[in-house]
Amino acid sequence: MPHKVRIALDAMGGDHGPSVVVPGAELSLLRHPDIEFVLYGDRAVIEPLLGAHPRLAAAVRLVHTDVAVKMDDKPSQALRYGRWKSSMWLAIDAVKKGEADVAVSAGNTGALMAMAKFNLKTMAGIERPAIAALWPTLKGESIVLDVGATIGADARHLVDLAAMGSAMARVLFDLDRPTVGFLNIGVEEVKGLEEVREAGQILRERPLPHLDYVGFVEGDDIGKGTVDVVVTEGFAGNIALKTAEGTARQIAQYLRNAMSRTWRAKLGYLLARAAFRTLADKMDPRKVNGGVFLGLNGIVIKSHGGTDVEGLAAAIDLGYDMVRYELLAKIGETLRRDGRESQAQGAAS
Amino acid sequence: MPHKVRIALDAMGGDHGPSVVVPGAELSLLRHPDIEFVLYGDRAVIEPLLGAHPRLAAAVRLVHTDVAVKMDDKPSQALRYGRWKSSMWLAIDAVKKGEADVAVSAGNTGALMAMAKFNLKTMAGIERPAIAALWPTLKGESIVLDVGATIGADARHLVDLAAMGSAMARVLFDLDRPTVGFLNIGVEEVKGLEEVREAGQILRERPLPHLDYVGFVEGDDIGKGTVDVVVTEGFAGNIALKTAEGTARQIAQYLRNAMSRTWRAKLGYLLARAAFRTLADKMDPRKVNGGVFLGLNGIVIKSHGGTDVEGLAAAIDLGYDMVRYELLAKIGETLRRDGRESQAQGAAS
Repeated sequence: MPHKVRIALDAMGGDHGPSVVVPGAELSLLRHPDIEFVLYGDRAVIEPLLGAHPRLAAAVRLVHTDVAVKMDDKPSQALRYGRWKSSMWLAIDAVKKGEADVAVSAGNTGALMAMAKFNLKTMAGIERPAIAALWPTLKGESIVLDVGATIGADARHLVDLAAMGSAMARVLFDLDRPTVGFLNIGVEEVKGLEEVREAGQILRERPLPHLDYVGFVEGDDIGKGTVDVVVTEGFAGNIALKTAEGTARQIAQYLRNAMSRTWRAKLGYLLARAAFRTLADKMDPRKVNGGVFLGLNGIVIKSHGGTDVEGLAAAIDLGYDMVRYELLAKIGETLRRDGRESQAQGAAS
Repeated sequence: MPHKVRIALDAMGGDHGPSVVVPGAELSLLRHPDIEFVLYGDRAVIEPLLGAHPRLAAAVRLVHTDVAVKMDDKPSQALRYGRWKSSMWLAIDAVKKGEADVAVSAGNTGALMAMAKFNLKTMAGIERPAIAALWPTLKGESIVLDVGATIGADARHLVDLAAMGSAMARVLFDLDRPTVGFLNIGVEEVKGLEEVREAGQILRERPLPHLDYVGFVEGDDIGKGTVDVVVTEGFAGNIALKTAEGTARQIAQYLRNAMSRTWRAKLGYLLARAAFRTLADKMDPRKVNGGVFLGLNGIVIKSHGGTDVEGLAAAIDLGYDMVRYELLAKIGETLRRDGRESQAQGAAS
């Protein structure tokens, strides 16, 4: 790819706005000098920050807007007053107009998804968008989707999610045929949700070339890293993601409490400090920050709203990878080569 | 309650059968000398074990059967050959016949639920059973249900789950009005699943006297202990439970790896060993072993199949508490005093 990776940044997004977005962008730029940024937001706040980050300033075009979507706006509210003019809208619109390759925002998820859907529209053949998350596992990382874009999924949508998730795994993990499993439960007679069984049948009967379908997985398989791509509808996926985050925080708290209780524990903690740092690093949610919106005519990355400079840089890095390793082309390839077949299959059944 | 607590035990259930069930029962008996056991299973295996556990032997009646449900049987298979005669069936049947107050089994969940439903039937006014789990939190413990008995739930069933879960919380946590929340996701415009919103509306408009409905909770609220009772349908509930178990095991593995990497870490580990034991204790899944089947005309407790003596004793302890503190009466109270109202409400809407 000869040209630079052009990233549109919603500078006003997130709990901390430009004070995190600007240094986060500079951090990512140091790792990827071939990024060009367009920043959307309040010039009066952003310009002084750019003054303090001269390396970034040299790679940035700043587009002023007064309007910023608030973190607690409802999507419909945000669309009403923020369309055409908010920093969030403008970042997405840059992707739509071909002025940027990817938009990154730490703003409100619902508003970002509503604007992205409204402006970019879903890809041909894809009915509903999804959010894919990177999930640290015992083997490395997996992709889990959908973690909350759309509630409920028929078999057809689950197969689309499998195709899109595997394209993302090819980009991120440099695999030709990522392993894919459908999240299910093993208690009922005929194993779990009907739509999930039906989707499994579609993939078993008509295997897709860029995807190694391995069957059903259960909740505890996610952390084990049993498959590269875990596919589920957005309600269960969001609950799985938040439950795992909650469990990780809970155990970290137990650990802190245990290590500060006695002088022996404190001394042990001091000696093992490097090991605890390794552990904290493993558990660091900032390292895997960034949800990828899939199924739209353009790439949008959602960063956690409360993240810091390191986390925001990770979200930008993720957007960079999606562009550099051609996520959209890979999804298109999967859908062109495979999707029509299974679409025909879906229509026939 | 003047009489003893009579517990029917499926001695053949679980990965280890009588070699765990017999000592587990003795351990629980030491904590609750007012238990009387009926053990169902293979006399040739159980009798020698009872010989080695004389205190238990004095409190046990042994009923021989050759038939045991296997851990990987399908529920329909288990019902076909195991009805009337398997150790699992006989334990449930003792509850049905009023010869025992509760049945405990570490056998296959699907088969146990199928037999319990078939034999005990659902309570008047309850359409589908549920499995409730105890969940360790930062504040103590919460109850989460349904963790996998039934896939999907309409608003009416979610309200039933709230009523049954709060009755269980009254038993276990000695509360008059446990706090209850519906598990939901916060991304979509009108907050999550329609059935969940509708159930929330029912509880807001017609509050139940033994239940403090606080609204929606998200996945990360479970570990925080935001509410005493977290209500969801069985698919999402099972995925939340297994995802949390997987995350806990994953972090424990990270911790073991980190603590064995360098001599400083190893020394630190030795010094802080007591603290690590406290942590391991906090994370010990055996301490909260036991799922409670709710909504049936009788109490059935499901222990993890792979648990050890300590875990099995915890499941028996749980069954003991459910009987001693009158779970069924408390559920009946809630359903009689509250359920009919909301049933009428459901019918009217």
